[in-house]
Order: sequence, then structure tokens, then C-alpha cells
Amino acid sequence: MARQARSELTRQKIIAAAVDLFNERGYPATGLGDIITRAEMTKGALYYHFDSKESLAEAIIDEGGAAMLGVFRTITGSSSPALENTIHGLFVVADFTRSDQVAQIGMQLLRTFSGINAAAGRVYTSWLDELTAQLIQAADEGDLEDHLDAAGVAEVILGSMLGAEALSRATAKGTDLRERVARSWELLLPAIVRDESLGYFREFLDRESLRPTRAAG
Amino acid sequence: MARQARSELTRQKIIAAAVDLFNERGYPATGLGDIITRAEMTKGALYYHFDSKESLAEAIIDEGGAAMLGVFRTITGSSSPALENTIHGLFVVADFTRSDQVAQIGMQLLRTFSGINAAAGRVYTSWLDELTAQLIQAADEGDLEDHLDAAGVAEVILGSMLGAEALSRATAKGTDLRERVARSWELLLPAIVRDESLGYFREFLDRESLRPTRAAG
Repeated sequence: MARQARSELTRQKIIAAAVDLFNERGYPATGLGDIITRAEMTKGALYYHFDSKESLAEAIIDEGGAAMLGVFRTITGSSSPALENTIHGLFVVADFTRSDQVAQIGMQLLRTFSGINAAAGRVYTSWLDELTAQLIQAADEGDLEDHLDAAGVAEVILGSMLGAEALSRATAKGTDLRERVARSWELLLPAIVRDESLGYFREFLDRESLRPTRAAG
Repeated sequence: MARQARSELTRQKIIAAAVDLFNERGYPATGLGDIITRAEMTKGALYYHFDSKESLAEAIIDEGGAAMLGVFRTITGSSSPALENTIHGLFVVADFTRSDQVAQIGMQLLRTFSGINAAAGRVYTSWLDELTAQLIQAADEGDLEDHLDAAGVAEVILGSMLGAEALSRATAKGTDLRERVARSWELLLPAIVRDESLGYFREFLDRESLRPTRAAG
């Protein structure tokens, strides 16, 4: 195996061990020593890739964030109307944060490091850009009310999804995330969708809410 | 000084030292040893009150959460209409999380421990109960649309405030929190307020957004 590929494999092994432990004990209670033991690695090998637990957290935030955005983009890349893609895509991402451990721990670390390190800001910014682009397209397609500022709406949508995830995680271990996402959209739709399209998107949302939760990815 | 009062004073001194350090370095990077040094205290004195850094975090989440809810209740206790109190109260709480260090660090720890310890769930539940009560009163006062489920709306409002705080903290160090709260309300109002009251509440929100930020508390 080429040196670079081996190095990347080691890096991924460390990340996998860290994700496991953060999942079992939470980030704050996990020590770098625990990660070294779990990854069956020397201290030197770990420090070659990550100089601290926080740099490991940053890597997981970036990887989890990229994976979630990747899942969303597989939906928004389809030729359906942008607002349908956005609604459907955020449900699929919600499912993904429950079924994929890196995404789940990435979300947890994103909350932990909001305002503390740059990775959280990077992930949020990439999501805001993506949502804003979708909303601009939805406006072009005539589904949104005229006076809306796409970037402002993207912020509120992202904020309400993040809040739904935090509440669901804290009060129901994430099991009711889909219902919370649906309730957020129920309130957001009348604020952003043109009156003529509102009936259609309410039905679209109802049908989306009723789809069985599948493992995405 | 009575023994109990002295003990409470020690406890508060430990909490203050921890809040200082969490503010300077973040929770993950702060060790119990740092807190003992900063509080100018023996290890034994700290362990008498808190058996781990996490139990200290729980105490700060509870204190910060209670302080924020206390600030909100000074507003909702007034005789103004419940929806006005709710809107105004959440702006005041937003200001408070920026001006009060225990509230600010409490919010940070609330995000960190969502789904990890019970304190985060307790704080969220107390907020949901309070918001639901206000919305039931607002419905009685005729300001809300008829079909709404107060508890569901309370969840979405709380979620959007939590998300706004996380985004503001991560991308602007909290400086634009007031604008984000205003944008969330702009989208929530048409979804929850009766058509006849919508014009009034939009103006109420505009006036609220323009008030200069004062230190609350």
C-alpha cells in the first residue's frame, strides 16, 4: 500500500475509534488515552495526525458536516422543484443524523464547538450557502412569496432544524426528530410559500411526514 | 457566618471560577485542576461540592437556565397580552444571554450536553412548559389562529431560538442574535397569529427590533 493511503487509513481508524467513544461516553468524558487504546495505536501515531482532542473533534465536525451536506445534495441534484427537494432533503438528512454515527457525533460536536472553533462556523456557512441557493431557485420557480430574502429565510430554516435536533436529542434521544422537523415546516410553509402553492406544499409535507423512516446513506 | 451559608458561598465561588475558565478556554479545554487554582481552593473543597467537571457543568446549566427563565418571567408576569410578553421576553432573554456570563456559559453547556446529561432536558422542559402556558393564554386572548397546538408551537419557537443562538454564536460571536431572533419571529408570526392581529404584531415586532440593546437582569 502506498504510504499516503496507509496514513489515511490510520487517520480514519483514529476517527472511527474516537466516534465510538464519543458515542458511548460523550466528548467531554473521553480522554486521548482512551482513543489511543481503542484504536490500538501508539501515542506517536495519534499525535502525527491530531495534536489534541479538539483537533480530532474539528475533523469529525468537518467530516460529519460534509457527509450530511453530501446526502442533501443527492436530493437537491434531482430535477424536482427546489422547494420539494429542500423539504424532502432535510427529512433525509434528519434520518441520516440518526442512522450514521459520524453524522450523529458530528452534530453533537457541532453544538459543543459552536463559537469555540472554526469547524462549526465552516459547516454552518456551507449549509447556509446551499439552502440559500435552493431558495433562490424556488423563488425563480414561483413557489415563494415575492418579498422574501433568501439568505434570511435559509438562516431561519437552518436554525429551526438545529434547534429541533437539539431538543429531540435532549428530550427523546432523537427518536422524534422527524415529527419535530415536520412541525417546523408546518409553521414555516405559510410564511414563505405563495398562497397559490400553499395547499400543494402542505400536502407534500403531510406525505413526506408519513413516509417510513429509512436508513439513508 | 453559619456553616450552610459558608458552604453555599464556597459553591458559588467554584461556579464563578469555572464559568470564567469555560468562557476563556471553552469547557472541553478546561481541567478540574485549573478550576481549583482559579478558585484558590483545595481539591477537597471542590470535591465536597462537585464530584466531576460534568457535575459542575450540570450545576451551571441549571443555574443559567433558571436565571434565563427568571428574566423571561419578569416580563410574562406583566399584564400585557401574552403574545406581546412572549415576543418581548425572548428578546430580553437574548440580550441577557449576551450580558450575563453564567447565562452565556449555561447556553454553551446546554448545547454541549443536549442528550448527554439530564440538566439539558430539565432546562428545555421548563422552557417548553412556560412557552406553552403563554401560548394558551395568547389563544384565550384571541391573538392566535384557532387550529394551533400550543405545545407544538412552543417547541418550534424554542427550537428556532436555540438554533438562532447557535448560529449567531458560531458565525458572529453572538453579536447578531437580536437580528436573528427578529427574523425568526417575522417568519413565525404569519403562521401563528390570526389574520386580524397580524398587522399589529408585525408592527410590534418592528418596534421591538429597533429598541436599543440594553443589559438586562
